Amino acid sequence: MTDWKNPPRLFIPGPVQVNDDVLQQLARPTLGHRGKEYSQLQAQTVDMLKKILFTDQNVFLSTSSASGIWEASIRNCVGFEETVLCTCCGAFSDKWADVARSCGRNVDELKVDWGKPVLTEMIDERLATGKYTAVTLVYNETSTGLTNPLYEVSEMMKEKYPDILVFVDAVSAMVGLPLHFDELGWDVVFASVQKAFAIPPGLAVAAVSNRALEKSKNVPGRGYYFDFQSFAKSAEKNQTPTTPVIPHIMALNYQCEKLVKEGMEKVWQRHEKMGEFVRSWAKEKFALFCEEKYASNTLTTAQNTRGINVADVIKAIQEKHNTIFGNGYGKLKEETFRIAHMGDITLDDLKELLGWIDEEIA
Amino acid sequence: MTDWKNPPRLFIPGPVQVNDDVLQQLARPTLGHRGKEYSQLQAQTVDMLKKILFTDQNVFLSTSSASGIWEASIRNCVGFEETVLCTCCGAFSDKWADVARSCGRNVDELKVDWGKPVLTEMIDERLATGKYTAVTLVYNETSTGLTNPLYEVSEMMKEKYPDILVFVDAVSAMVGLPLHFDELGWDVVFASVQKAFAIPPGLAVAAVSNRALEKSKNVPGRGYYFDFQSFAKSAEKNQTPTTPVIPHIMALNYQCEKLVKEGMEKVWQRHEKMGEFVRSWAKEKFALFCEEKYASNTLTTAQNTRGINVADVIKAIQEKHNTIFGNGYGKLKEETFRIAHMGDITLDDLKELLGWIDEEIA
Repeated sequence: MTDWKNPPRLFIPGPVQVNDDVLQQLARPTLGHRGKEYSQLQAQTVDMLKKILFTDQNVFLSTSSASGIWEASIRNCVGFEETVLCTCCGAFSDKWADVARSCGRNVDELKVDWGKPVLTEMIDERLATGKYTAVTLVYNETSTGLTNPLYEVSEMMKEKYPDILVFVDAVSAMVGLPLHFDELGWDVVFASVQKAFAIPPGLAVAAVSNRALEKSKNVPGRGYYFDFQSFAKSAEKNQTPTTPVIPHIMALNYQCEKLVKEGMEKVWQRHEKMGEFVRSWAKEKFALFCEEKYASNTLTTAQNTRGINVADVIKAIQEKHNTIFGNGYGKLKEETFRIAHMGDITLDDLKELLGWIDEEIA
Repeated sequence: MTDWKNPPRLFIPGPVQVNDDVLQQLARPTLGHRGKEYSQLQAQTVDMLKKILFTDQNVFLSTSSASGIWEASIRNCVGFEETVLCTCCGAFSDKWADVARSCGRNVDELKVDWGKPVLTEMIDERLATGKYTAVTLVYNETSTGLTNPLYEVSEMMKEKYPDILVFVDAVSAMVGLPLHFDELGWDVVFASVQKAFAIPPGLAVAAVSNRALEKSKNVPGRGYYFDFQSFAKSAEKNQTPTTPVIPHIMALNYQCEKLVKEGMEKVWQRHEKMGEFVRSWAKEKFALFCEEKYASNTLTTAQNTRGINVADVIKAIQEKHNTIFGNGYGKLKEETFRIAHMGDITLDDLKELLGWIDEEIA
């Protein structure tokens, strides 16, 4: 019997499981969003996010899913006469190109097969045409469990195309994978909090470079809800332009405190260890869907080499243990399956889950 | 000492005070937004909202503040060649006109002084020009505490201008004031949940007519995040197009259960009684800012006829009782002050607050 009040424990690649102490942060008494209590909350939270993202530039809190920032980055920073190059390697990077088109912008795509990375030389070749104002990159493609080599891409771009704006979807990467925003020379990066921040969905975090903000001043048709200029103006008072999702910002404050205390190097190492553990199991029992070099440390996509019925295994584990993991995404359903290992998920949690899968496939 | 973890009790006109049992709904275990548990939650919640809004048409849940739906209504339902008439009678109705312009649409304004209603004959006169495709109305102007006579306006529009689309901001009206969506012939109505639903901010509820949805199919530049077509397509599966703010939807489900059980007539009467009580105090001690006929049942704006220092009184009550009410909005600061009486606020709560104000002004 489906009962939303008694949902399964989540190993799907987002929303991920949220610990009880984090959930309780959402239940704190609410605040007036124009009062000093709220400003204190936002100031504290943004300060910590700047440490987590290694930036001295702008950090905005958007009451939306991260996909709102797909639209925001395009509307704010790409003029109607300009063209953006969208790199596509899976369902979510593909979608971003659609979103850019829905905003009436000119879009070219650089497409690779799902499960393959977008490589530095491919991007270089396209940018060399001189046609592009901006490029969209996905750090970690949640549909395939692939991490693109963005540190290498960013080095190349800083050297050869320093004037091209760089927008990065870090939805399932932020917190789990290294991210030095200022050093990488990125212009917009964003994530939802229901991935490695381990908070329920409803809030997106975005870092925006000073030059992107400057450029947005003169881009028409930015609209209202996602206008970076309004975000920047309100940020001066430690506020948001529209009423924010305060419970989630309280939970984010709580999670940021823990992350800053742990130290980001250690947080990334913790995710790396979880990634290694699940990959090692997946290689032994199945195969990795992506080349290991590009396999993500926040989720693993296994190739269903044994021809198991993935949906049946998920169903069985849900019935026995009230726990679910992810089937393959879209066209990769049954051909692959996905296990999240990010946020507050632990190695012990993963051992338990993989043990249950082992029992089902034995 | 400002401490966001120990905030004041709220009588500002939103966010309003949220009861502990409602806050606890936000702390429920989270769900996968593509799983059957989430669909069950959304289906239940939307069914109850349809009863609350008296509609058989479309109800959407938007992870945004209600101001996102200002933008959505315009982007989805007003073409670039068309003109929308924005009726303006306070800070928020004024802002909606700005938002429509920021979406690149043609806007004419029908402006009255703050604190005055937009009357049926004024709207009739403008619509008679034949220039307009749509009109924006604000049911309850939160900045002035004024309720526009929308039942009368709607009767006139249904009779004389049945083809003109009607968009209604019901941010501080929905739940607190009568709202029969289908019967009124409205096309879009929306509110945030931090007003009379008495939930923390982060979610907006919108009803959208079938004809508005049909029209939006052919309006270009709808963008992505607020595209009604995507909302409608996802609603067929009891889902949202992007990851929704699940904790708030759980709390909304809880609040809707209570509202449906109480019955909307009784809910509106309860608000009316609170309105009468606060107005009677305000008339005795100060004066009403709006003509009584148009004074709202969800918040009262008092004219500061005694020349008190409003900010000082609010500060004193915060220090003594950790409770705040609202100063006047924008240019009405100090000249007026505002007291919310909606959602889960009770007559006893209001007696307590008004007693404290009496002590300060004695």
